[in-house]
Amino acid sequence: MPNPVAAQGSVVQGTVAKGYEGVREAFEATFAEERAGHSAQLAAYVHGEQVVDLWGGPGMEGDSLTGVFSSTKGAAHLVVALLVQEGVLDLDREVRHYWPEFAAAGKEHVTLRDLLAHRAGVIGTDEGFTLEELADDRAVAAKLAGQRPFWRPGTAFGYHAYVIGALTGEVVRRATGRTMQELYEERVRAPYGLDFYMALPEEQEDRFLTTQPMDPTPAQTRALQENAPGRHSFFGVAFNLNHAVPTVLEELPNHRVIRAGGPASVGGTASARGLAGMYAAAISGLGDREALLTPATAAEFAQVHSEGRDLVIGAFGAFGLGFGNMAAEKFPFLGARAFGHGGAAGSQAFADPSTGLAFGYNRRRFAYREDNEVQLTRLIKATHEAATR
Amino acid sequence: MPNPVAAQGSVVQGTVAKGYEGVREAFEATFAEERAGHSAQLAAYVHGEQVVDLWGGPGMEGDSLTGVFSSTKGAAHLVVALLVQEGVLDLDREVRHYWPEFAAAGKEHVTLRDLLAHRAGVIGTDEGFTLEELADDRAVAAKLAGQRPFWRPGTAFGYHAYVIGALTGEVVRRATGRTMQELYEERVRAPYGLDFYMALPEEQEDRFLTTQPMDPTPAQTRALQENAPGRHSFFGVAFNLNHAVPTVLEELPNHRVIRAGGPASVGGTASARGLAGMYAAAISGLGDREALLTPATAAEFAQVHSEGRDLVIGAFGAFGLGFGNMAAEKFPFLGARAFGHGGAAGSQAFADPSTGLAFGYNRRRFAYREDNEVQLTRLIKATHEAATR
Amino acid sequence: MPNPVAAQGSVVQGTVAKGYEGVREAFEATFAEERAGHSAQLAAYVHGEQVVDLWGGPGMEGDSLTGVFSSTKGAAHLVVALLVQEGVLDLDREVRHYWPEFAAAGKEHVTLRDLLAHRAGVIGTDEGFTLEELADDRAVAAKLAGQRPFWRPGTAFGYHAYVIGALTGEVVRRATGRTMQELYEERVRAPYGLDFYMALPEEQEDRFLTTQPMDPTPAQTRALQENAPGRHSFFGVAFNLNHAVPTVLEELPNHRVIRAGGPASVGGTASARGLAGMYAAAISGLGDREALLTPATAAEFAQVHSEGRDLVIGAFGAFGLGFGNMAAEKFPFLGARAFGHGGAAGSQAFADPSTGLAFGYNRRRFAYREDNEVQLTRLIKATHEAATR
Repeated sequence: MPNPVAAQGSVVQGTVAKGYEGVREAFEATFAEERAGHSAQLAAYVHGEQVVDLWGGPGMEGDSLTGVFSSTKGAAHLVVALLVQEGVLDLDREVRHYWPEFAAAGKEHVTLRDLLAHRAGVIGTDEGFTLEELADDRAVAAKLAGQRPFWRPGTAFGYHAYVIGALTGEVVRRATGRTMQELYEERVRAPYGLDFYMALPEEQEDRFLTTQPMDPTPAQTRALQENAPGRHSFFGVAFNLNHAVPTVLEELPNHRVIRAGGPASVGGTASARGLAGMYAAAISGLGDREALLTPATAAEFAQVHSEGRDLVIGAFGAFGLGFGNMAAEKFPFLGARAFGHGGAAGSQAFADPSTGLAFGYNRRRFAYREDNEVQLTRLIKATHEAATR
Repeated sequence: MPNPVAAQGSVVQGTVAKGYEGVREAFEATFAEERAGHSAQLAAYVHGEQVVDLWGGPGMEGDSLTGVFSSTKGAAHLVVALLVQEGVLDLDREVRHYWPEFAAAGKEHVTLRDLLAHRAGVIGTDEGFTLEELADDRAVAAKLAGQRPFWRPGTAFGYHAYVIGALTGEVVRRATGRTMQELYEERVRAPYGLDFYMALPEEQEDRFLTTQPMDPTPAQTRALQENAPGRHSFFGVAFNLNHAVPTVLEELPNHRVIRAGGPASVGGTASARGLAGMYAAAISGLGDREALLTPATAAEFAQVHSEGRDLVIGAFGAFGLGFGNMAAEKFPFLGARAFGHGGAAGSQAFADPSTGLAFGYNRRRFAYREDNEVQLTRLIKATHEAATR
Repeated sequence: MPNPVAAQGSVVQGTVAKGYEGVREAFEATFAEERAGHSAQLAAYVHGEQVVDLWGGPGMEGDSLTGVFSSTKGAAHLVVALLVQEGVLDLDREVRHYWPEFAAAGKEHVTLRDLLAHRAGVIGTDEGFTLEELADDRAVAAKLAGQRPFWRPGTAFGYHAYVIGALTGEVVRRATGRTMQELYEERVRAPYGLDFYMALPEEQEDRFLTTQPMDPTPAQTRALQENAPGRHSFFGVAFNLNHAVPTVLEELPNHRVIRAGGPASVGGTASARGLAGMYAAAISGLGDREALLTPATAAEFAQVHSEGRDLVIGAFGAFGLGFGNMAAEKFPFLGARAFGHGGAAGSQAFADPSTGLAFGYNRRRFAYREDNEVQLTRLIKATHEAATR
């Protein structure tokens, strides 16, 4: 990083490049808003050069790893993008071409593109999953193959929160004979030296910090209780509340079985450096390694395919292929082709090809959603402004 | 009903099963909110056993019948679901296959599925209907056959308030030689002994109570006037305000010609017992009679096909096939496959296969929409909670 | 105009027919709300007879011309409607049939209908346009031919603010050998004597008034700054903020090169008489000249094809073919087949076949959007009420 400016006399450690002082200030401001004990990391690259490398809070180091929940989906679909780029996968082929058992209960004509755009409607099963099943994409895929969709495929969309990586991963496995986890490790993580693991090896466990439970205010607690989702509702099915022994979202990465299996929808562990680094590798390359994606592939995966009211979340959403379209979804000041993904605890990562920016944020305490969105907007705005000045 | 608990010392009469006391309290609470003279009924079944049987208010008995307006559409599309289940109708066939005259003015490729999903765009005619025409589904269908749609079929959806039953009913009639009214009576109402009539026989008239006009507050009156729909607007066409002599929605069931004809969109009369009973018959069976629908048929008709901003209503809506998807539409705590329909005066009925719940609510005074939604949410939440405890 | 009632002792000049006094009052009220120096025009026809002819403010005459920005799109797509009516263009043909170079970068199957419904996703280019390019539809079309869409064509829609007229105009030019500007002049403007020019001839320049810059309140200035769009965002691409030298929207018609070229998306100049007169010519005819469109053609172009959240505007929108559907978009009291278009400075024009109304409003000072919508709603409501009494 050129011209590093160290933060001092602050809870925040690390450095920013000249011109990115506003990012450090915005990051520091989040600590003032949060209760004691908050810890987080922030990293950014521009055209493959790191410009932000910050962290702070008890026990948090620059290379600490935490569960990144659905930010994992970005790693998974970077693998899919590579395979599409190479002609191994065809977006407009019906899923059954790769995975014959999937052609059941009204899913016969669902394409890989539909899966990636969260349009297939197979957000879970009627009975839900055990924790062990959730740790194993093949087990999840096997149970989903015969499942009747929860909406008419193609007519609506909704967040396939716990299963999209198992669905697209099964297509990958049938087409290549390799799992998403293997391909990600070999083609993305290892060659670029990224601290962003889909399946976390035993020897990296000492850097892992558990996710801390949400610490809502009394008003937030009331709001959460009043809007508690039904077990068999769209949200309930998608977040596995309908199993006889419902799993607890905020505890997922705290189970070693999940971290070890690294399910492609929710099982990844990373630092902010790893999150931002992966998106830098995707669009810019890192060091002397070239970008993983051509501009055309990145543009195709960023293209909005589904937007409007998400049937699962019950609020506005906008997806490209496997990634969210960042500008359409939440951050309208970003480039129209910015693509990325966030995770339930509050992590967020993306690439914006219009400015060459790759961004990664990570936090340890499970966030209250609305608060997190306000903080992310400020952090991303500050980084975007510095990168375009 | 096992362990009935009678309500006493209250405007509310009837019984609830043990564990459903909260439902009675919620029902009683609605009387405290409404002005004097309010009357209503509430009934529920779980797995075919009645667990709630309540009513109250001047002149209202447990077996009183009132006009249920669009809750009638549930009866109509239960008939369609049966015929699809039996292979008599094919959802993906173009309507013209059954009804050649319909292939006009841009409707050539509209399928039965499109009709059921409120996507055809034939929400009325350019000239509107007389009251006598509205009472006769064949007359309505004849006038709609050549009509140009009010939006491009398939590109949007909007509530076909007064005509969906005439459109789907004409398909039924052409395919079977029988009317929707005849088939409903023979296959659904009579065998299950339901107090839910599509066409009300003369001999049942003594149980019928007219719908009372809305009694809005001054603020509500102002709001209604400020948002008064134009006669030729989407709402105006769909609710027959564009006829030279516009019909009055809240008076529809008070005309004997409507009750006798029983148009499948709006002409039904029922008690809450009948409303809930029909949905219990659909998914669970009643007494020693089996369920009318297989789980697969119920799931297909519940699947969301249209969701987003309803062009006619101008607000969010979510339809399956002929039924609303209850969880997507208004009650997100219900199961993702709950299906049903409500009516303009305030009635609401549905089945939730995830819990085996069948629910029916009915009221005599035409409701102010927003107030009614608040009350329904509380009544349904209380019933759902009791059923899942 | 029968029984003209002159306005006197007021900033407002001109006349209204008997029964339209409320329209004059509503128009006068807008001057009381605006700051000093405001000037505007209002005109309306019913069944081809002018019933409103009003104007007011410093320097404004009844025959003054101002830049009407996107109201120009109404003129452009009236030409397309004529060509579809005559069988020269086929809405469901792929654009490449007319314009082979367009079949690139994922746009192979885009139809003329998709273009007109703002679904193609080609809202601009990655590099933007110079002012001179924007003045020349052929130059814009040439740069768009190879462009990758900003969303998956057909899956979403967004306002093609600066380019829809170049896209549809290129189809027109390839099919007929004539430009949109030539055909509009020959078939629409000249024969009906309309003061609504797509390309403004030199000899009409003395009637032209420049658009004045917006004059926001401090609160409005803050709101505009807080929501400033990113240069490469959807909005930024669509409004040419991504060019190395971004053009300024509110200055566009003040450049003679724009007025002279008359780009079909934004380059027109008109009086309110011209705006309303064009829509009267479209549905009713003017003087002894017949209506340009048959009722069937008008109905087809008014049919909603795209509605929901507009990806570019980030708010609700509703388009027919090339025109907005006025009832679905903003004025729900109008007929379901009312079609028209507004422009950024605040102009608005439409036809409502259900009442025979043709409406035109024009103003010189660039409006603050929300204020303008409130004023337009009142002006249109007053005119609609007078026309339907």
